[in-house]
Amino acid sequence: MRSPIPDYLASTLSDVRDDDSGAVADYIPELAKADPDRLAVAVAMTDGYLYEAGDTDVEFSIQSISKPFVYALALADRGFDDVLDRVGVEPTGDAFNEISLEPVTGRPRNPMINAGALTVHTLVGAPGAGPGTRTARLLDGLSAFAGRRLHVDEAVFESELAHSFRNRALANMLRANDVVAEDPLITVAGYTRQCAVLVNTRDLAMMAATLANKGVNPLTGEEVVSARVVRQTLSVMSTCGMYDGAGDWMTRVGVPAKSGVSGGLIAALPGQLGIATFSPRLDAHGNSVRGTELFQRFAEEMNLHIMEANSAPLSVIRSTGVIDHGGRPLYVMTLQGSIRFAGGERVTREIVLRTPPCRRVAVDVSRVYTLGEAAHLMLRQTLERLCADGHRVYLVDADARFGPDFAGDLDVGLVTSLDEIRPV
Amino acid sequence: MRSPIPDYLASTLSDVRDDDSGAVADYIPELAKADPDRLAVAVAMTDGYLYEAGDTDVEFSIQSISKPFVYALALADRGFDDVLDRVGVEPTGDAFNEISLEPVTGRPRNPMINAGALTVHTLVGAPGAGPGTRTARLLDGLSAFAGRRLHVDEAVFESELAHSFRNRALANMLRANDVVAEDPLITVAGYTRQCAVLVNTRDLAMMAATLANKGVNPLTGEEVVSARVVRQTLSVMSTCGMYDGAGDWMTRVGVPAKSGVSGGLIAALPGQLGIATFSPRLDAHGNSVRGTELFQRFAEEMNLHIMEANSAPLSVIRSTGVIDHGGRPLYVMTLQGSIRFAGGERVTREIVLRTPPCRRVAVDVSRVYTLGEAAHLMLRQTLERLCADGHRVYLVDADARFGPDFAGDLDVGLVTSLDEIRPV
Amino acid sequence: MRSPIPDYLASTLSDVRDDDSGAVADYIPELAKADPDRLAVAVAMTDGYLYEAGDTDVEFSIQSISKPFVYALALADRGFDDVLDRVGVEPTGDAFNEISLEPVTGRPRNPMINAGALTVHTLVGAPGAGPGTRTARLLDGLSAFAGRRLHVDEAVFESELAHSFRNRALANMLRANDVVAEDPLITVAGYTRQCAVLVNTRDLAMMAATLANKGVNPLTGEEVVSARVVRQTLSVMSTCGMYDGAGDWMTRVGVPAKSGVSGGLIAALPGQLGIATFSPRLDAHGNSVRGTELFQRFAEEMNLHIMEANSAPLSVIRSTGVIDHGGRPLYVMTLQGSIRFAGGERVTREIVLRTPPCRRVAVDVSRVYTLGEAAHLMLRQTLERLCADGHRVYLVDADARFGPDFAGDLDVGLVTSLDEIRPV
Amino acid sequence: MRSPIPDYLASTLSDVRDDDSGAVADYIPELAKADPDRLAVAVAMTDGYLYEAGDTDVEFSIQSISKPFVYALALADRGFDDVLDRVGVEPTGDAFNEISLEPVTGRPRNPMINAGALTVHTLVGAPGAGPGTRTARLLDGLSAFAGRRLHVDEAVFESELAHSFRNRALANMLRANDVVAEDPLITVAGYTRQCAVLVNTRDLAMMAATLANKGVNPLTGEEVVSARVVRQTLSVMSTCGMYDGAGDWMTRVGVPAKSGVSGGLIAALPGQLGIATFSPRLDAHGNSVRGTELFQRFAEEMNLHIMEANSAPLSVIRSTGVIDHGGRPLYVMTLQGSIRFAGGERVTREIVLRTPPCRRVAVDVSRVYTLGEAAHLMLRQTLERLCADGHRVYLVDADARFGPDFAGDLDVGLVTSLDEIRPV
Repeated sequence: MRSPIPDYLASTLSDVRDDDSGAVADYIPELAKADPDRLAVAVAMTDGYLYEAGDTDVEFSIQSISKPFVYALALADRGFDDVLDRVGVEPTGDAFNEISLEPVTGRPRNPMINAGALTVHTLVGAPGAGPGTRTARLLDGLSAFAGRRLHVDEAVFESELAHSFRNRALANMLRANDVVAEDPLITVAGYTRQCAVLVNTRDLAMMAATLANKGVNPLTGEEVVSARVVRQTLSVMSTCGMYDGAGDWMTRVGVPAKSGVSGGLIAALPGQLGIATFSPRLDAHGNSVRGTELFQRFAEEMNLHIMEANSAPLSVIRSTGVIDHGGRPLYVMTLQGSIRFAGGERVTREIVLRTPPCRRVAVDVSRVYTLGEAAHLMLRQTLERLCADGHRVYLVDADARFGPDFAGDLDVGLVTSLDEIRPV
Repeated sequence: MRSPIPDYLASTLSDVRDDDSGAVADYIPELAKADPDRLAVAVAMTDGYLYEAGDTDVEFSIQSISKPFVYALALADRGFDDVLDRVGVEPTGDAFNEISLEPVTGRPRNPMINAGALTVHTLVGAPGAGPGTRTARLLDGLSAFAGRRLHVDEAVFESELAHSFRNRALANMLRANDVVAEDPLITVAGYTRQCAVLVNTRDLAMMAATLANKGVNPLTGEEVVSARVVRQTLSVMSTCGMYDGAGDWMTRVGVPAKSGVSGGLIAALPGQLGIATFSPRLDAHGNSVRGTELFQRFAEEMNLHIMEANSAPLSVIRSTGVIDHGGRPLYVMTLQGSIRFAGGERVTREIVLRTPPCRRVAVDVSRVYTLGEAAHLMLRQTLERLCADGHRVYLVDADARFGPDFAGDLDVGLVTSLDEIRPV
Repeated sequence: MRSPIPDYLASTLSDVRDDDSGAVADYIPELAKADPDRLAVAVAMTDGYLYEAGDTDVEFSIQSISKPFVYALALADRGFDDVLDRVGVEPTGDAFNEISLEPVTGRPRNPMINAGALTVHTLVGAPGAGPGTRTARLLDGLSAFAGRRLHVDEAVFESELAHSFRNRALANMLRANDVVAEDPLITVAGYTRQCAVLVNTRDLAMMAATLANKGVNPLTGEEVVSARVVRQTLSVMSTCGMYDGAGDWMTRVGVPAKSGVSGGLIAALPGQLGIATFSPRLDAHGNSVRGTELFQRFAEEMNLHIMEANSAPLSVIRSTGVIDHGGRPLYVMTLQGSIRFAGGERVTREIVLRTPPCRRVAVDVSRVYTLGEAAHLMLRQTLERLCADGHRVYLVDADARFGPDFAGDLDVGLVTSLDEIRPV
Repeated sequence: MRSPIPDYLASTLSDVRDDDSGAVADYIPELAKADPDRLAVAVAMTDGYLYEAGDTDVEFSIQSISKPFVYALALADRGFDDVLDRVGVEPTGDAFNEISLEPVTGRPRNPMINAGALTVHTLVGAPGAGPGTRTARLLDGLSAFAGRRLHVDEAVFESELAHSFRNRALANMLRANDVVAEDPLITVAGYTRQCAVLVNTRDLAMMAATLANKGVNPLTGEEVVSARVVRQTLSVMSTCGMYDGAGDWMTRVGVPAKSGVSGGLIAALPGQLGIATFSPRLDAHGNSVRGTELFQRFAEEMNLHIMEANSAPLSVIRSTGVIDHGGRPLYVMTLQGSIRFAGGERVTREIVLRTPPCRRVAVDVSRVYTLGEAAHLMLRQTLERLCADGHRVYLVDADARFGPDFAGDLDVGLVTSLDEIRPV
């Protein structure tokens, strides 16, 4: 049986594909060469299951999306006190490449602006580590987030370094303020290399899922950083990740996110999933045009918003099993709790991967107390496909809260208890 | 059996009681008269169950804590477009009483600063409603959030109105910018009345719980505002609720909150609970000193942070029941999923309210995958009291993940399956 | 013979007459009614001689051009300390009607923005004077600057008062900050009346000429304010008079100036002249379009720039020489003009380097019209030393303006003409 | 006879000598080594006469005092348009070493902040000149201002260059904004060398006097820059020279000034004099403590304030009268001094109102040392009208400075003395 989720993702890509507004970043030839029509999305669950659609194989430089991950590595390597002494956590209305330092301390206001990211870069690895050691640690760490070995695109690195006057300005200012102690050019070179790490959309989704999974990579099981570090990182992403307009993003999308100049965009919903999109054309703020559109759709349709109480995906399936019902086998799946996107995904996947071993299937939703829009859609499609595959499906809904909406024109038996199911 | 939760709350009050730093707001005599030593906390669950400690009966004027609730009412009454046309959602570093208007539109930056709150006040009720009708709607709405009838303190109202030069300045500026169309003095009088509504700490906790419960008052079951309105309101509280330092509050406490000049402080954790504290002495930002301290403790100990994946409180108890075990009754409670503060509260309350009907009690935590610090503490104390009441308690922990930490010096039988429990 | 100056002025008007860009201020009907084609210029010399061209008879409300004059009156009435305690002197990039208060003190940044002008308005007259007394003082003062009786346009006053929400906002904010102690509406009404005083272009030129003439009205000879007050007023006009772009105005035009929303524009070149133009269409900054053009022409063609309008130190010594006086040699040094430090230095140096060739020395100061403090001191000391060296020194002071002060205890002969000198 | 002026200067030094507040700049050892007790003052008249007191022989690095002079050189070398395209003229409240660039253009706000001074440095000499040529031009130019050959202190240069992270930050930012096209390190090295030029207090006074003297060095007679360049430079000094507090300095001292971190402070009063002080201890703004005190005294006692330092329009007519010339009447009007608009108006008015009583008229301009454009025009027209009215007009111009320009096609007799006038 086929999962409806990739279809959903592919359909959202189709809806935005024709929007060719915005422009590819062109301040260096290596970015300007990007194919502007590329479009991809990937969703990684916190247990590592991954859905994808579009050009998810295409690699591009990670750019600013490296910032939250390297911030997490620095917090892990140096501790909160050392990092917070050097870089603040407050949002700023400034554009991403402006200098935004606190008046008295000279501290960058947050780790998502370039001044903060340059400082954070110097805080990776052990104190006193040389640039080589630091870059090795950083590549190891980003690879651990992604769950596969990542590499630097040397052409992008060299091209960006040759045009890095703004970052050199920032690094010199940080050096002048004694926020960073090393030669500013070493900082800039290291940071530029960090930005030139190649990823594809799958990698980014898995990196985001690692944040959503309390720092444990869902594929490898490695704890890349601690849950406390993740909490800090997601908090800062939520207020500072989308440059200006923190309040706008929080109200409309409501999930910690980060964008990059090569067209990537990620978000992490704690406990549930990571999402990444890729589309190189940028708006005036430097965010991917179609990526932003996709996230606005996901926010509405996948109930990503962090202010909407989310369920605990592992416990929405109360039980599954085949019982003897009137002398013939009946597969019963009992659901419970609040089922949102991630919960719906669990149910759908359970049915998709483990085809019910008998013809008759009963899904008991009597103990479900909320059913998100996305979960609703997913469950309907899953039941529809079960029917199409020849199963006879019953929806057990003791209080008749979901049944009528749910069933609609589906050929599903609506019952209020297992007893109502005809033995046939 | 007594619940450990009120004890926990009382103990946190004791810990902060001696801190007499800060000062009571004294810009009007009615606020200056407040007893600075008053201290209270209340926690309201989303099903209406309420825990409390300290001076929770003391009434005080709601002041700025009215802002998010009236914002929600305005969104409900006028729709998102009308309200967002007039008031933005972006945080500002300015102090609460400064003018903070957007350069071109003259729109207040957000509804939590006074300029925004004055504008929002005019958007309650039907368009064209007079001041009397508007105030009636507003009192009805705030009362619906609280679940009991609230009233205005006329002395506070009159005193504040006589000193309201700053708000009059703001209202005139809004009138000059055509953001508000009515006579500025009418706006100021209405808003001042809104701020003079009397509440106690229990009211505030229940109002917050109504936000946490998607707009449905847990006591009355009334849907005061829609879930979408609540989502917007909580989002704005999370970025703009604590004046300056949005990033600091988000990283350290991480839950939508609002403070008031009379010493109140509330927070709402979506899907779980509302909390309120009361302590009149304020810090330089105008936030309650001891209230802020209490929230920092709660953030750590109750795992309130919104970036930490939240549990589904209703489904953490997988099953309860008495089985026949070796010919004698055994009460078995099976837990599951991620148990955080609200989940722990559910388990504790279940045991407290429905005393196990037999001597032997088994709590099976084999399917629990995370156990928050607060939940851990609550469960330990609950089991301890069960023992003290003469029960023989077993902790079933198939993978031995919680057992040793849990049991410690408790007289609890640690087993990996029910089979290990001795029949005696 | 006909003077070329009126022809020059008329010709400049012709050159700009066809420019109909900009728009008449229309926030109140009384301003919107202004005939946009009106165009006038007047130049008043510091001796009261006046040149004019265009519609110099047309009256209009003085508006913001009242600000520097009322500032001067406040300085005169209350002293520098009281005024500077309440209003700063620093330029601000803000537009004229924005709130621009210093962060800590709440003081308006300067007297040319509305917040400052409202505050200054309350500082006219004796402390504690009621609004009526204050307005009377203010009208007297403005009339004294103009040299004729001025009146308020009551229609403009009433219309502006009805639309004065922004000024009411400012006045309430000043009241809240304790910068102003009275009822904000009284302040606004008084200030609005101040702005509604009717003037024509000739009046404005004469008012500016009074500033250029050290505070003495060239027509009436009345000292309206002191030279020190004028110095302060012109300094503030030079940095804050033209709203934003202080540096631009200073480099391009270089003369203290002030514009008003009804289309007036004045400038005062110390010691030389006052100029006023009138043309109602305004640019985006609120400055008269054609007025600004005229001033740019004047700046180039009339060499108004204050960095060029320098004194003539070489000409303070009108003549030196030995004459036969009663059969004996008398060394006569005739001084003239305005003698300040550099002029005094020239005189001193002349005497020091070229020791008078005979015993008797007469210094004729009858043609000196101002004598700076430093020059005074230097000359005294020089004469003292001449005496000490054995010279017999006479001070010729036809009008006895400097003599008594000068001589004091010096052994110098005070005479009103050379004839009075004894032939001895 | 001894001049009282050196005594006055020495006495002011005595008055401030004991103030040891403030601290010597210590960010590089070469500055920290300065003897903090050094104290000097020098006053240079526009004819080159110099008064001095204290340690006027001590050399120190010029530092920021180079900024206005190099700005003048850049204006001279590249023209106003090129320089103004790159650097603005608006004051900024920022401290001297902060980045203060205009939002859209990235242009430094003015040439007195470091970002502006770095940009200006690159605009000295011919376009495309290499660093060596540029430094040579710059040393030549500064030497021309001082009237003696100046040299770079290589130790200061090298030490400052090693600590120039802030300037490197600025230069990189300017490069990123395409305000400066060259390698940022070349800019910084060149600018650092500019700041390391050694001067003593006498040099600074003479440099300031060159500005006061319309760009002509009073000692050498060389026109270092044009009068128009000087006007621009002095204007910018007056609004931006003393870092923050432009309004404060303008009201209290009122003369274009510039300070440097090594303890120097200069001011130029157009047409009169240049002053310099030297005292290494600095206040929090980076201005010399005792230097500032001295200037406040000079402002009061020497009447330096530019709003008072006005021309003497009444004395431009040295004399008028009818003389017997070859037996026939000749009306002679002798002019003197600097004739600008107001002076020209006096002359014109004299002739217009008191028609010369005889046919022949001689206007003697031999003692006129500057003639403004407007005055020139007015006098030409006045003479033209005299001719038209039937007078025979002679222009007496001993040094033939104004004559040819003046007369042009007028039917005016050009003579160098009254004797040349034909008796006809």
